[in-house]
Amino acid sequence: MADIVRPTTPATHTRTPAGGAPTAPHTAEEAAEPRIDVDAVTDLLLGTWAHTRREAREMIKDPALWRVDGMPMAEHRERVMSQVHLLVQHGASKRAFPKEYGGLDDNGANLAGFMELVLADPSLQIKSGVQWGLFGSAVYQLGTKKHHDEWLPGIIDASIPGAFAMTETGHGSDVAAIGTTATYDPDTEEFVIHTPFRGAWKDYLGNAALHGRAATVFAQLITGGVNYGVHCFYVPIRDEEGTFLPGVGGEDDGVKGGLNGIDNGRLHFDQVRVPRFNLLDRYGQVAADGSYTSEIDSPGRRFFTMLGALVQGRVSLDGAATTGTALALYIALTYANQRRQFDSGAGTDEVVLLDYGKHQRRLLPLLAQNYAQFFSNDELLRKFDDVFSGKGDTPDAREDLETLAAALKPLSTWNALSTVQEAREACGGAGFLAENRMVGLHQDLDVYATFEGDNNVLLQLVGKRLLSDFAQQFKDKDAAALARFAVGQTAGKVFHGAGLRALGQAVTDFGSTARSVELGLRAEQQHELLTDRVQQMVADVAGRMRPAAKMPADEAADLFNQNQSELIEAARAHGELLQWEAFTDGVAKVTDEGTRQVLIWLRDLFGMYLIEKHLAWYLINGRLSAQRAASVSRYIDRLSARLRPHAQDLVDAYGFEPEHVRAPIASGAELERQNEAREYYAALRASGEAPVSEKSLKKKRK
Amino acid sequence: MADIVRPTTPATHTRTPAGGAPTAPHTAEEAAEPRIDVDAVTDLLLGTWAHTRREAREMIKDPALWRVDGMPMAEHRERVMSQVHLLVQHGASKRAFPKEYGGLDDNGANLAGFMELVLADPSLQIKSGVQWGLFGSAVYQLGTKKHHDEWLPGIIDASIPGAFAMTETGHGSDVAAIGTTATYDPDTEEFVIHTPFRGAWKDYLGNAALHGRAATVFAQLITGGVNYGVHCFYVPIRDEEGTFLPGVGGEDDGVKGGLNGIDNGRLHFDQVRVPRFNLLDRYGQVAADGSYTSEIDSPGRRFFTMLGALVQGRVSLDGAATTGTALALYIALTYANQRRQFDSGAGTDEVVLLDYGKHQRRLLPLLAQNYAQFFSNDELLRKFDDVFSGKGDTPDAREDLETLAAALKPLSTWNALSTVQEAREACGGAGFLAENRMVGLHQDLDVYATFEGDNNVLLQLVGKRLLSDFAQQFKDKDAAALARFAVGQTAGKVFHGAGLRALGQAVTDFGSTARSVELGLRAEQQHELLTDRVQQMVADVAGRMRPAAKMPADEAADLFNQNQSELIEAARAHGELLQWEAFTDGVAKVTDEGTRQVLIWLRDLFGMYLIEKHLAWYLINGRLSAQRAASVSRYIDRLSARLRPHAQDLVDAYGFEPEHVRAPIASGAELERQNEAREYYAALRASGEAPVSEKSLKKKRK
Repeated sequence: MADIVRPTTPATHTRTPAGGAPTAPHTAEEAAEPRIDVDAVTDLLLGTWAHTRREAREMIKDPALWRVDGMPMAEHRERVMSQVHLLVQHGASKRAFPKEYGGLDDNGANLAGFMELVLADPSLQIKSGVQWGLFGSAVYQLGTKKHHDEWLPGIIDASIPGAFAMTETGHGSDVAAIGTTATYDPDTEEFVIHTPFRGAWKDYLGNAALHGRAATVFAQLITGGVNYGVHCFYVPIRDEEGTFLPGVGGEDDGVKGGLNGIDNGRLHFDQVRVPRFNLLDRYGQVAADGSYTSEIDSPGRRFFTMLGALVQGRVSLDGAATTGTALALYIALTYANQRRQFDSGAGTDEVVLLDYGKHQRRLLPLLAQNYAQFFSNDELLRKFDDVFSGKGDTPDAREDLETLAAALKPLSTWNALSTVQEAREACGGAGFLAENRMVGLHQDLDVYATFEGDNNVLLQLVGKRLLSDFAQQFKDKDAAALARFAVGQTAGKVFHGAGLRALGQAVTDFGSTARSVELGLRAEQQHELLTDRVQQMVADVAGRMRPAAKMPADEAADLFNQNQSELIEAARAHGELLQWEAFTDGVAKVTDEGTRQVLIWLRDLFGMYLIEKHLAWYLINGRLSAQRAASVSRYIDRLSARLRPHAQDLVDAYGFEPEHVRAPIASGAELERQNEAREYYAALRASGEAPVSEKSLKKKRK
Repeated sequence: MADIVRPTTPATHTRTPAGGAPTAPHTAEEAAEPRIDVDAVTDLLLGTWAHTRREAREMIKDPALWRVDGMPMAEHRERVMSQVHLLVQHGASKRAFPKEYGGLDDNGANLAGFMELVLADPSLQIKSGVQWGLFGSAVYQLGTKKHHDEWLPGIIDASIPGAFAMTETGHGSDVAAIGTTATYDPDTEEFVIHTPFRGAWKDYLGNAALHGRAATVFAQLITGGVNYGVHCFYVPIRDEEGTFLPGVGGEDDGVKGGLNGIDNGRLHFDQVRVPRFNLLDRYGQVAADGSYTSEIDSPGRRFFTMLGALVQGRVSLDGAATTGTALALYIALTYANQRRQFDSGAGTDEVVLLDYGKHQRRLLPLLAQNYAQFFSNDELLRKFDDVFSGKGDTPDAREDLETLAAALKPLSTWNALSTVQEAREACGGAGFLAENRMVGLHQDLDVYATFEGDNNVLLQLVGKRLLSDFAQQFKDKDAAALARFAVGQTAGKVFHGAGLRALGQAVTDFGSTARSVELGLRAEQQHELLTDRVQQMVADVAGRMRPAAKMPADEAADLFNQNQSELIEAARAHGELLQWEAFTDGVAKVTDEGTRQVLIWLRDLFGMYLIEKHLAWYLINGRLSAQRAASVSRYIDRLSARLRPHAQDLVDAYGFEPEHVRAPIASGAELERQNEAREYYAALRASGEAPVSEKSLKKKRK
């Protein structure tokens, strides 16, 4: 990796304006247009905790923290464990925890910093997420001061590596149904942790196969013959030599599709006794005599409160997926701006990949989408910080935060996979080499779509929240009012449940002064189309679900099942709207004219891309005429061509440095090779010894 | 792997017909419907060379041929090389080659057998594809008898492992522009093979990093000061000890996203001399004095003839991608038919995954698509066999074959990636474990989308063929005739270029006697919708491209570029139509009533899935009313529910045996775990010692 050079600026060789290849200008300079202020956009993208992110990016310039392709699993696991200790040395694990344990009590900064680790090695991001975000958070968020005093110091300095033992082989998404039991024995004042059958083995747990010394084990709390539902227990699992403690057993999950620097494994417990002390009892307490108390009376609400305390995993995955996607886009677009293939038939230089209509089409809308994700993730992060810092910690705010995380994490993790895949294919065979990063990113980020909440299950949660918010509005209204509503609402006064902003609160500014007024698809109309779709889909499902209230449970379940797919789609539409709004609000902060202009085009491209994706829906529901709909795709083509000269600026604005990129194809080597080839052919022509082509020979003969 | 058991048949436990979970019947028996004849469908899917495929599947039951997850690259490479020798021992390499060299001269069977290797290890499929399908084929197809005598025996028995040195770092898709030169020296009667600059290094070549002793090197043939374009040369590269010969150098491509059992690498040549003999001279000869002759006068046509001789790679990838996809669907659907998660709220057993509307929706259309691919691949294979056996080897047939392969390979390789990904996510965390195969399939099949022709580039070729066929029809007609045509055509008399069947020839049978008459979307209408779309899209692009003929080259190139995306879409639509037609023809062969019925539903699901994917197009172009369009999605829901009881039969019909599947989650282990859990809870209830739930306690208090 000694040959890393600063990624070259866009190609600046002279180009023949007429008679040349089918190209738009390659740079904003050539386009004679206002260009973006790259540094200012970097600030904008890095968001509220830009300082912490820069600190983290500086730290991970150390090659000791980088992923090494092809490293055997055993070695990779040890490397990542040692990297975790390096993070401790850098003080990177302190931000989340209270000051009294040497922490910084800075929740937003903590997640912002951790997200960046994806650039070093996603295994490191997730391994430290397991240690501090899950295992550590369980102790911190679900435990009380006595637990903090006992275990937080060892957790923060990683001298107690721990597993987060929630998922079981038999139950993943349905945590409430796990089989592990924790039965209180008042005689010894102990809980007996037990795995009653194979399906109740804890599974897929980072730190379980090798490094974990303890685990936060979720189990059905049983005392006095009553099951009080799932609670969390601190359970030591290995001794200092790494041997399982009596009654504890496990298995290695072995090789995975990615993240092989993490020792995922299984755990099971055979009547393992832990002191009563070890119940993490913030939300539910068991007295010495076995009597149970909780400030939250409803078992359901208590369960969701405990799970909600762990929402940071989803917030952090949303950000890491966004940053990982940005890296793939940086690499693919930088390469696309240098690589040439096929001459245009016009007898000139070969065509730069990004000059092809198809290549613009396949990558630029994904760039727009990724920008939107940066803005929405920053809003999510601020909401998270508000709640967890205590500044805005109300039950409603917590519920909003959870819904928001559940809406955004699925979108960004799926987008990561499809974007990284498109980016890798756009680089051809070079994209398949591990050294160019994209295949590794895909492999590591793959599981983000199903862990910390399966994406479809999360979206269904969001859908249910949308349905209940919708019902809430009409609680005291009759069917006629409902019908009027479904027909008459406009963007200004729409239902807007569980969003980034309160009901009816408009986004700050549509940037309507700018030249986005094209084809009647300006910002207000994008917003209206996106909002109406959420509204209408929720109303449709709600309408079809109305009879369920009076049905037997099995028929109601059947009816729900028939609407499941569409409810999930509605939730996705909601998430897309939130991303679009966040992008729009983000752009509104920009004062520099050129930057603002280009970002408005990019936001428009994102809006059009979403509308095109769901074009059939808009047509079927009479929201767009056939003519207007047909213009959407053409508008995307035009926006892509318009943004093409700004593409390099826009990916440069991610602010990655060579130590973050580390992909030879994005290093400028391609351009060097082309220059060398060009010089070779020029010299050959000059020498007079160049062979003539058979074709020209044939022409001469004629 | 000792615990492999025969994949269990679908869950047969008793289910409560009323008051139960929201389930359709799980099996055809329960549905009291005619079920498919599983064995007969297996025959149908395995197609024309079913016998050879079964032979290959029998051979790969040997664990020595299996992929071992997590094996370090160096070891994996040696293992795959030794597997290649095992194939030789099994006689698997003989089928493609002439009888005089111990071959079987059976082209169709050869590819049919090789496709199945994907089930053992995709690295083995591609490594043997490099040896016999590319390196060997180049010698066989581009060389003449003297070359066959000299090298084929060593190629067939793999004593000469070889690389296929076509692609260069600087030129992949644009082979005509490669930089390597082969300059004839009449004094010594040798060709001088030379790499003039870094971009002309041969790259991504299997067998180049380690095992190759020779390479078929594509280079610009220069003799007498004239460049006759790209020709292929046999060039020894390593001695018996594996050391590069003088003038030859190279580099290892290192770790890749998958296929790490293959030693891909780079080669370069510094004035390497080979005898005149080594020009593979079937299509172009150089006499001792350096004079050039070829039976194909046009340099362009000669070039494409040479490339076309190597079409088998694409045919074989289409089949391998289809088989690999089938494996992922077998695993995900078998698991979905056993795995339970969440109770339905109706107080019964937890719900089987495949009973969820969303789960049916995400997997069953992909199953339908995969069935279509089996049928279209068999047609492609027959066409290939016709041409290469000489039975139907005309220039037109060759061109059709190449277009067909270029249309089908992109679709099946992309479908492989999206289907395998959906399958892996549908299995949650278990799907991410390497032992369950899906992540490995995705990693290995990833590069199929860009090698042997980048998918977008291939589709563009198809699109250009469609355009020229279209133009051909109107060669002597005026604009008015063209306009009449564009408006008036119906499915019966449509343009149908480069297809599986000749212009105007209808598919055999729509199965119209069956109950697919629903919602006015029966087979004839599906066919009309799919056909019209190809027709219209091609006509649209052709219309917009008409001015190009009178434009300067650069403007024409610009105009083409503006239509590139849509032309590629038209080609994709063409490929989808071909798949649909092949499926329909395949079903027409079925005589068993139940089988026929179920397969017609499945074909309808595929048709509806395609139409839904392009619904906006149908609406914008007035081919479907909003009402009809809205019914498409509902029809898909209904077809999915209708096919749900047949899902296990349909994947069982792939005919995989446990040694092919090797995925613990599809082994029946999940069902065993559930039964164990069920028995545990039953025993607990019976004991009278089961804890009561807090909820029920609260109710009691009230």
